[in-house]
Amino acid sequence: MKQLKKLFFCVLFVAILPAVKAQEVSWSEVQPGIWKAVIGQPEKYDLLTASGAQPNKEALAKIGTAPFPLAKSDIEFKVVDGKTYLRFPLQQKEQLYGFGLNFQTVHQRGKILELHVDHYDGQDNGRTHAPTPFYISSNGYGVFVNSARYIKVWAGSGVRKDSPDFPTPTDRNTDKDWAARPYSDAVEILVPAAGVEVYVFGGPKPLDAVKRYNLMNGGGYLPPRWGLGFTQRVMASSTAGDVENEVKAFEEKGYPLDFVGLEPGWQSKSYPGTFEWDKSRFPEPSVFVRKMLDKQIRLNLWINPYVSPEAPFYKEIRPFTSSHTVWLGLIPDFNIPKARELFFGQLQKDQVDIGVSGYKIDEVDGFDYYLWPDVATFPSGISAEQMRQTYGLLAMRYSAEMFKKLNRRTFGLVRASNGGGTSFPYVIYNDYYDHKDFVTALVNSGFTGTLWTPEVRASDTGEEWLRRFQSNVFSPMAMINAWASGTKPWTYPEVEKQIKEYALLRMKMMPYWYTEFAKYHFEGIPPFRAMNLEDGFNQEVTKETLMKVDLEKNPYAEATTREVKDQYMAGEYLLVAPMFTGEKSRKVVLPKGNWYDFYTGKLAGNGEVISITPGLDIIPVFVKDGGIIPMMPALLHAPKPGDKVDLEVRHYGEKAGVYKLYDDDGETFNFEKGAMSWREIKVERQANGQLKGAISAPEKGKPNTIGKVKFVFF
Amino acid sequence: MKQLKKLFFCVLFVAILPAVKAQEVSWSEVQPGIWKAVIGQPEKYDLLTASGAQPNKEALAKIGTAPFPLAKSDIEFKVVDGKTYLRFPLQQKEQLYGFGLNFQTVHQRGKILELHVDHYDGQDNGRTHAPTPFYISSNGYGVFVNSARYIKVWAGSGVRKDSPDFPTPTDRNTDKDWAARPYSDAVEILVPAAGVEVYVFGGPKPLDAVKRYNLMNGGGYLPPRWGLGFTQRVMASSTAGDVENEVKAFEEKGYPLDFVGLEPGWQSKSYPGTFEWDKSRFPEPSVFVRKMLDKQIRLNLWINPYVSPEAPFYKEIRPFTSSHTVWLGLIPDFNIPKARELFFGQLQKDQVDIGVSGYKIDEVDGFDYYLWPDVATFPSGISAEQMRQTYGLLAMRYSAEMFKKLNRRTFGLVRASNGGGTSFPYVIYNDYYDHKDFVTALVNSGFTGTLWTPEVRASDTGEEWLRRFQSNVFSPMAMINAWASGTKPWTYPEVEKQIKEYALLRMKMMPYWYTEFAKYHFEGIPPFRAMNLEDGFNQEVTKETLMKVDLEKNPYAEATTREVKDQYMAGEYLLVAPMFTGEKSRKVVLPKGNWYDFYTGKLAGNGEVISITPGLDIIPVFVKDGGIIPMMPALLHAPKPGDKVDLEVRHYGEKAGVYKLYDDDGETFNFEKGAMSWREIKVERQANGQLKGAISAPEKGKPNTIGKVKFVFF
Repeated sequence: MKQLKKLFFCVLFVAILPAVKAQEVSWSEVQPGIWKAVIGQPEKYDLLTASGAQPNKEALAKIGTAPFPLAKSDIEFKVVDGKTYLRFPLQQKEQLYGFGLNFQTVHQRGKILELHVDHYDGQDNGRTHAPTPFYISSNGYGVFVNSARYIKVWAGSGVRKDSPDFPTPTDRNTDKDWAARPYSDAVEILVPAAGVEVYVFGGPKPLDAVKRYNLMNGGGYLPPRWGLGFTQRVMASSTAGDVENEVKAFEEKGYPLDFVGLEPGWQSKSYPGTFEWDKSRFPEPSVFVRKMLDKQIRLNLWINPYVSPEAPFYKEIRPFTSSHTVWLGLIPDFNIPKARELFFGQLQKDQVDIGVSGYKIDEVDGFDYYLWPDVATFPSGISAEQMRQTYGLLAMRYSAEMFKKLNRRTFGLVRASNGGGTSFPYVIYNDYYDHKDFVTALVNSGFTGTLWTPEVRASDTGEEWLRRFQSNVFSPMAMINAWASGTKPWTYPEVEKQIKEYALLRMKMMPYWYTEFAKYHFEGIPPFRAMNLEDGFNQEVTKETLMKVDLEKNPYAEATTREVKDQYMAGEYLLVAPMFTGEKSRKVVLPKGNWYDFYTGKLAGNGEVISITPGLDIIPVFVKDGGIIPMMPALLHAPKPGDKVDLEVRHYGEKAGVYKLYDDDGETFNFEKGAMSWREIKVERQANGQLKGAISAPEKGKPNTIGKVKFVFF
Repeated sequence: MKQLKKLFFCVLFVAILPAVKAQEVSWSEVQPGIWKAVIGQPEKYDLLTASGAQPNKEALAKIGTAPFPLAKSDIEFKVVDGKTYLRFPLQQKEQLYGFGLNFQTVHQRGKILELHVDHYDGQDNGRTHAPTPFYISSNGYGVFVNSARYIKVWAGSGVRKDSPDFPTPTDRNTDKDWAARPYSDAVEILVPAAGVEVYVFGGPKPLDAVKRYNLMNGGGYLPPRWGLGFTQRVMASSTAGDVENEVKAFEEKGYPLDFVGLEPGWQSKSYPGTFEWDKSRFPEPSVFVRKMLDKQIRLNLWINPYVSPEAPFYKEIRPFTSSHTVWLGLIPDFNIPKARELFFGQLQKDQVDIGVSGYKIDEVDGFDYYLWPDVATFPSGISAEQMRQTYGLLAMRYSAEMFKKLNRRTFGLVRASNGGGTSFPYVIYNDYYDHKDFVTALVNSGFTGTLWTPEVRASDTGEEWLRRFQSNVFSPMAMINAWASGTKPWTYPEVEKQIKEYALLRMKMMPYWYTEFAKYHFEGIPPFRAMNLEDGFNQEVTKETLMKVDLEKNPYAEATTREVKDQYMAGEYLLVAPMFTGEKSRKVVLPKGNWYDFYTGKLAGNGEVISITPGLDIIPVFVKDGGIIPMMPALLHAPKPGDKVDLEVRHYGEKAGVYKLYDDDGETFNFEKGAMSWREIKVERQANGQLKGAISAPEKGKPNTIGKVKFVFF
């Protein structure tokens, strides 16, 4: 061994090369305000090939171009040791957002992450359901790394010895200002592949970069109207009869219900699954599905994509599956057409064709102990790592195709997404259940091109039940997931009245939600998003001063940062500030401009931090000055195509306002061929000082679901 | 993008190859009972080149060979995607140990780990101070992966579809025995490099595999006698005068003290460091060091290896350092001789040459926010990842050389080690402070070729202080680390008496500890180790039955395993079962054979689980039948070379016993040239039924520190 060692050091010192030289990146504008660089030898399989994302060129052209947002010479890359090292500059006071669906933090500057599709395990470390390699800067630009690898990110933590911004070292023995984390002037990224495609998105504002990113991926999915109603997931062992009874109970009690989720027990076997109905619990699936549809109730079916030996297509699909199994089920390689044909063919024939409206795709995220190891192999030759990063994308993409073929929109649930997944009809959910962190995930979802539901499952108290329900109503999918608990909206009698009121509010707001989702589709604006994307919101990173440091507990005397992560924007005009169990009051940061109470129209404040004590009945919601919220009556189901609903258009504050209301048939893709309209709602102050509202006339030959329109001035 | 996609899928399907064929590994016996396989193209820089570990061939020859412990055809490897996939078989009921210095678990079968040098952060996930890629099987063999990469391990979690042991899938809807983690029959390992060296260690017992591993790495370091005494680390800002006063206080109060640790303030600047004395706090270092040595007090100096601009060798070393900094200090590339010469040259000249006895090498482990990112580069061309995995090894190796050159033994502290590090004079410590987990780390240290100290810092109560101190006395380094707290052994007056008694017990047991460390050096037997390595210990993996599953909190109804992780073997004969604050009683698992109370000699049990209520004064310790424990008087400092000490040899139980007592000068490496002896102590039962003890005569011309010998029969 001694000789080996000597030999090694000989070789080593002969081999001391000048450090691999960093190269400047060459950028080409692939869409207006979107630049792409091809670095090294990118792999053929990446997030955009997996998702099949197609840019909405028309919408991107409408936004137009922008100046390249960074000094190109400050962006560097090297390919070292078979890996790609990227560096992007950071300015003083610049803040970063994004890097996937984080649950506890909004400010990402200074973080170290390994972006890895996984269930969320209580730490913002890069392992999450949608670890999108996309970040947005408060300076108004975005960066996307199009790789399906586990990407490591140092989002402003490393300090290079030749940094032009090198801080002055201090002495920890004597200098009280010594910092455990000195100032860093770069985002550094390691892509474990010998090349990668990188995209930069121009501004000028951070929201512009987000819009460009979303539109490059096709924009958000426009859900069917019923997708924005209320959904209840029933217990895993429910039978057709149980479901009918539950639907009846909703009807009798006057609770809205648009779709019902069936959990594993709809299948004859699950974990691994057969992907066919259990005939003991559902003896006549097509009759049952039809019966439900007649009551305006859609069905959404839970699956995870791991194939039981008793699945009808098991033998046929076996050659097109991984070396490894999940819960002893085969893992279809969705990169192989034959695997897709067999898997989705079964779903199509057995479920979609008889009227099932969508799926809940479970366990495509992690966690490691259940999923395939990174040493698994797949017959397409795509590595286990790349499959892990894209399996959710593939499952969403090819399941959505089943519905597209039938010209039916779907809306479902999924546990994993990634870059490129913006345009899929899925909302992310998980097993985690911290209400505050659920709200922070909602804040961050807008940075990742994903939708997230802070689902309600069960609660220890009526107060918690109501608090969770209230936030859930102001989220992409209003849902109780009672697969294990069997809870109903009315399970906690002490808050039943308030729950019902909020369930109905969800329905009343459907015209607003539907339009805001249309903006996600056509303009790339996330319907739920961080305050940091809102004009007039300016929150400095505040370092809490550590007055007294306990070195036993905090040996490096680390300071902490404060950030706004418990309030968010919902659509164009609403600011939602949820309440959490046990809390009677809270602070709300209001951006510049007047903000009004959603329920009373009372002025709440302007560019300030207010303190409120709203009581148990209320989730605080504020409306921007001039805000217009179109509402409909509290129906128990979304309107059917052709139904007309009356509108109550609310206007808040002093300013004139304008709102473009979206309309179409609510169920098909005919809108893609022009069967849609944007109706302009205007509120103006008249000569007499009074406000007056008007809505533009319906366009000829376009769908029109609007009946009478009434204006209410708050 | 559409065209690109099409092209991609064309390429993809042309490229569907037959899955990369796994190859059978070819093994060669490199030492008796140790086999090596060279897989793919191993990298030149690995754990063994970094550590420079040399096998103790003589000792290995003494153990002799063994049958190859696995079916060779069941071991497979593939090189895929530039990475090496390894697979080793597992049998039913086989348990695995090791995989680095874990803090919470002993049984590793079923775990998924990424072996990554890091500070310990509360989870056994592979990130730890010594993430040694070495595992031991209860079936009596070991496996070592000689790679300085972040190695991923699935230690029996994946289930391959073609596994010969494939379990029968069940239906989660209806089958109560459905398991979230089905049976797996293999350890799978991913080494992110296109080749690797792997070693297999024969048995027949698990301890034999451990011994072979340790001896291949040169065996454990034989500490100087003083290293096994008591050490106190003083407050960071202490001056020479403060230290003298503290030493005086120990003396006056009658507490043992062998070495004192100086924390960052000994340096003129720290974080980053100058590596020279602060002349305001230590105006005459050589006088001060001399004065301490005259009182038989050694000094150990805290460092972390990051170089301040004010270090005297800053400019010279700059070209031989990383692209990145740590706390704005340069990171020397210890693979470059010039960097070592400059860095250790400073230490040698300024400190070692004037009599400093050793170092505490901090922050060579992590955590990520303080250390260099994986995109850092080093002038030797060794990657940041490999440097992270080996920086502790390099720091230990080259600092130890300074003392070796002077024929002086050292003994210090370090925060990172790895495979190959067995023979270094360092004990691992950290910032974590959970007493139970500290004990579990002690249990696991014996599986990793490392030493670990459950150091005592401060405590909320006297009870906690005493409980921590008691375990610390039965560990490789008996130490109070008061760098932040300034605590002394007598800080908690309510337990001062007991603390003193245990501090003195540590000194009394020095002949036993010294011999047990000699066995680590000459025979590879870890002085502190798990019960699982002990004959007669047989603990089945017990699955706790989940009587009532709360699916809200445990959605996959996971069962848990029980394991013995709060008791350990200390040397040949002692079983230590620490008590923890707040606990009045505990269970102890006794292996087969009679076990006796260390303090009273009373029979405690035999192959059974006993329940004990020892009271606050006692840390329960048990002695094996026939156990012999050589003890000396309660000196306040380790004996000097040439000093003679009387022995009290304790014998426990009914059986005859034998003990080989090690002796040498206690300070130099002359033992390597034969200046050492093993004296045989024998206790035999005479014709009259009485036990009688004897010790063999001292060997001529060999060091002899033994005075009168008295036998005590418990």
